Amino acid sequence: MKKFEEKTIHTEKIYDGEVVKLQVDDVTLPNGKNSKRELIKHPGAVGIIPITKDNKIVFVEQYRKPLEKSLVEIPAGKLETGEKPEITAVRELEEETGYTTNSLRFVASFYTSPGFADEIMYLYITDDIIPLEDEVAGDDDEFVELIELTLEEAIQYVKEQRIHDAKTNYAVLYLQTLERM
Amino acid sequence: MKKFEEKTIHTEKIYDGEVVKLQVDDVTLPNGKNSKRELIKHPGAVGIIPITKDNKIVFVEQYRKPLEKSLVEIPAGKLETGEKPEITAVRELEEETGYTTNSLRFVASFYTSPGFADEIMYLYITDDIIPLEDEVAGDDDEFVELIELTLEEAIQYVKEQRIHDAKTNYAVLYLQTLERM
Repeated sequence: MKKFEEKTIHTEKIYDGEVVKLQVDDVTLPNGKNSKRELIKHPGAVGIIPITKDNKIVFVEQYRKPLEKSLVEIPAGKLETGEKPEITAVRELEEETGYTTNSLRFVASFYTSPGFADEIMYLYITDDIIPLEDEVAGDDDEFVELIELTLEEAIQYVKEQRIHDAKTNYAVLYLQTLERM
Repeated sequence: MKKFEEKTIHTEKIYDGEVVKLQVDDVTLPNGKNSKRELIKHPGAVGIIPITKDNKIVFVEQYRKPLEKSLVEIPAGKLETGEKPEITAVRELEEETGYTTNSLRFVASFYTSPGFADEIMYLYITDDIIPLEDEVAGDDDEFVELIELTLEEAIQYVKEQRIHDAKTNYAVLYLQTLERM
């Protein structure tokens, strides 16, 4: 859908980083006037909801520098260039939790902040996870701690805002709708 | 929670825009090594789920430049400095839909992309909306079209990815859990 399309007149590239790129576009609005749009380019990301045999959800706690605090989240990570989200999902599961899986089910996808960023999040679930025999090396600047919670405990973590990000809040709400635990 | 805290050694401010600021922090990791973090600063945002007397949800369709397409979303907008989210919610409802309300209920809040941005989203719902007598002027670079949908129709929009952003997908899932329609 192209309703109210904003045509680009000029793009100024501001920053080209490891995670994000920033550009400012001059655009023509539907009424013919001009405006500026600040745009973050992001490779996209994947989150995975791993469920253990005894119906616990596997989360990871990690420090989030933009917030200057740690959050409890489902395992997640950025897409590598050209990588299929399913591949990223299994890789991040292995790196962050030490589990792997052969069966993923797609849950949802959504843009996290469509007003200023093109980041898309793909969410998967698996209730068939197997501990890896050998540890998989993850990113060397990533420090995470595993936390396994029942759905009831996870709902409590949401209330306490220890779980407090879009993909994980969505995941907990989704599991409530499943009523499978 | 400060688990795995990353201490800032140096902050390089890259860009200071209307919507976002970008900075790159040099940090010391928990293992003593150094790394870089690209951080987007954002004022935070509010979304509101307006329900009409005949149980329809009021959405707005708007062009999202980062995606180069339009999405159907719940009314939403950025927090002004120091503004309470409830005030923003009513203002955005008035500007984008021509409805107002005296009764808001808090639904949830979440960080949209805690890996690189500090943006927080506050979500509210109201089933007590009143048409404004006079139109309220909104942002002069914002073009939106009202769409009122039943929950069933909204679920179909999610399937077709015409609804495809974190706050609105969360809102539709939340309404499914309410089973109030």
